[in-house]
Amino acid sequence: MKFKTIEWKDDGVRILDQRKLPGQVRYLECKDALSVAKAIRTMAIRGAPAIGVAAAMGIALAAQKIRTHRQELFRKEIENVFTQMGQTRPTAVNLFWAINRMRRILEQVNTYGVEQTRMRLVDEALLIHKEDIEVNKKIGEHGKRLIRNGARILTHCNAGALATAGYGTALGVIYAARDEGKRFHVFVDETRPMLQGCRLTAWELAQEKIPATLITDSMAGVLMAQGKINLVIVGADRIARNGDTANKIGTYGVAVLSRWHHVPFYVAAPTSTIDFAIASGKEIPIEERPKEEVTHIGGRRIAPSGVNAFNPAFDVTPHSLIEGIITEKGVLRKPFEKNLKKMLKSKNSFF
Amino acid sequence: MKFKTIEWKDDGVRILDQRKLPGQVRYLECKDALSVAKAIRTMAIRGAPAIGVAAAMGIALAAQKIRTHRQELFRKEIENVFTQMGQTRPTAVNLFWAINRMRRILEQVNTYGVEQTRMRLVDEALLIHKEDIEVNKKIGEHGKRLIRNGARILTHCNAGALATAGYGTALGVIYAARDEGKRFHVFVDETRPMLQGCRLTAWELAQEKIPATLITDSMAGVLMAQGKINLVIVGADRIARNGDTANKIGTYGVAVLSRWHHVPFYVAAPTSTIDFAIASGKEIPIEERPKEEVTHIGGRRIAPSGVNAFNPAFDVTPHSLIEGIITEKGVLRKPFEKNLKKMLKSKNSFF
Repeated sequence: MKFKTIEWKDDGVRILDQRKLPGQVRYLECKDALSVAKAIRTMAIRGAPAIGVAAAMGIALAAQKIRTHRQELFRKEIENVFTQMGQTRPTAVNLFWAINRMRRILEQVNTYGVEQTRMRLVDEALLIHKEDIEVNKKIGEHGKRLIRNGARILTHCNAGALATAGYGTALGVIYAARDEGKRFHVFVDETRPMLQGCRLTAWELAQEKIPATLITDSMAGVLMAQGKINLVIVGADRIARNGDTANKIGTYGVAVLSRWHHVPFYVAAPTSTIDFAIASGKEIPIEERPKEEVTHIGGRRIAPSGVNAFNPAFDVTPHSLIEGIITEKGVLRKPFEKNLKKMLKSKNSFF
Repeated sequence: MKFKTIEWKDDGVRILDQRKLPGQVRYLECKDALSVAKAIRTMAIRGAPAIGVAAAMGIALAAQKIRTHRQELFRKEIENVFTQMGQTRPTAVNLFWAINRMRRILEQVNTYGVEQTRMRLVDEALLIHKEDIEVNKKIGEHGKRLIRNGARILTHCNAGALATAGYGTALGVIYAARDEGKRFHVFVDETRPMLQGCRLTAWELAQEKIPATLITDSMAGVLMAQGKINLVIVGADRIARNGDTANKIGTYGVAVLSRWHHVPFYVAAPTSTIDFAIASGKEIPIEERPKEEVTHIGGRRIAPSGVNAFNPAFDVTPHSLIEGIITEKGVLRKPFEKNLKKMLKSKNSFF
């Protein structure tokens, strides 16, 4: 990748400000946990895996900067940062998964001094970052076999290098297929209201010189009817035990259209996106964001003033509409719940 | 209505510039046929019935201004204007229907002098305008019985007063139901790329104080899944003999989602939108518009430069997905082709 989504600097976290893309490539230099939390909440950084990494780095940054040598006080302050990070965005489970990994470190090291604890928390954040890229590459390896030469792939939102520590989930599969020499075409849903497809996915694919066509979200249906799309791959923000998948608003509509037109619909996500605590998508909290994201574009009002708008950031695609879930351990097939259990038991790749 | 979409002035045609809405309410004063043609092509005025009226008025304007008393020369110049109007936009059949009505006048009056011909052409344009409003009101009367108290209606694009000489087709049904005292809620698809739902439908409904919620096109699916929409009404740009309907891009996707969720999907259109010359939607020419409508919003680039984009302005919804077509002669039910023939034979309302 020619850019870094998020990077650890010894005195801060450097975050590519995705709100400015593609017009400007600007970085936020976050010097404390609060500014990392703000970057997550305001979507300067977004994408389930990326916000997990950002939360971990924000916690690591706090760990470095808390001015105390008393273990008890240190832990109390770190716990506050866990809470703060957990309140940024409710839907992506990777955020809570990353916070929990950091919390486990705190539990493991409770006989250590503060200095060692700081170090271990920083190490864990860096490990989460490094592992995320490795996991994405494995997702790519498992998923690339689904892409045939000449494929015409639709993706929604951005599940690329920008949505992760680097490389990407849905786009990771695409990059892996490209690296293998496969030729194909990608249709990119612009993904209103925040235009992640238009601003981020089209930008990533252009950087990587992958042939792509930008469409409005409303065009996917007719492209499928005309036989112009034969594969859909999207990312995920949270996957329930039964395979129900929360992802960017509009994903559900794409899934229904895919089923209607017999186009296979795949989800690509690390296993950290699977929330084993919940049985179905009904339990996934769906974030509602400010209505100004719908009534305005780039800060400019497009709707009449005073108009009412609805802005759920995600929707849930039922497992019945999903052909397979591409994880770092293999491509999970139906029945998802049963196969998920099997996958967890197997130490190596699932298949 | 508190505004006039299009108005005949003795020295020109006054057109509400819909590209500026809702931010600015500005009128174009078209002094010749060329500027009316340009207003149609650039979507200052849009909506199948409205562009039919505009084309007729543009022809009437030319008829008034052609500086000759020689019938042959006059006819030749008017024929050029017919051609010019016919080249503005290819999909909406009302445009060709209106041009044909004007052409028939020319055929009827071929023994008249130029002055009388001018007068007859102006009269016909004014009649087309007047009839369009009457027809819309009849569509409203026939359609309003489909709206139950407490209904939650979805509409796509703008098939309102702004898309017609006044009143509207899909929104005409809504206005008629409101006038009857019914209470309901309208969900408005923003309708990318040109945002007619956001800019025009939301504006019209706000003017009329009808409760409405603006959504992105990608939200319709999940609203249906949640049972929040129980009726869909859209307009049409061209309807084939078998009922296949071309309408604004995205309509097809809404129709598939409606069928999937068992939500009845209705088309509201005057019979002038029915193209009896074609057997199915496959024969409807679909206009492709500049890709800048997708890569830019309000003149401002949102996509990375150099990105490829696709911009079909319409799609075709197969008749199988349509519950009924609400016309000024009644609500046409399946089988559309057979019932259409019956409807044409009946002198009064169909039912």
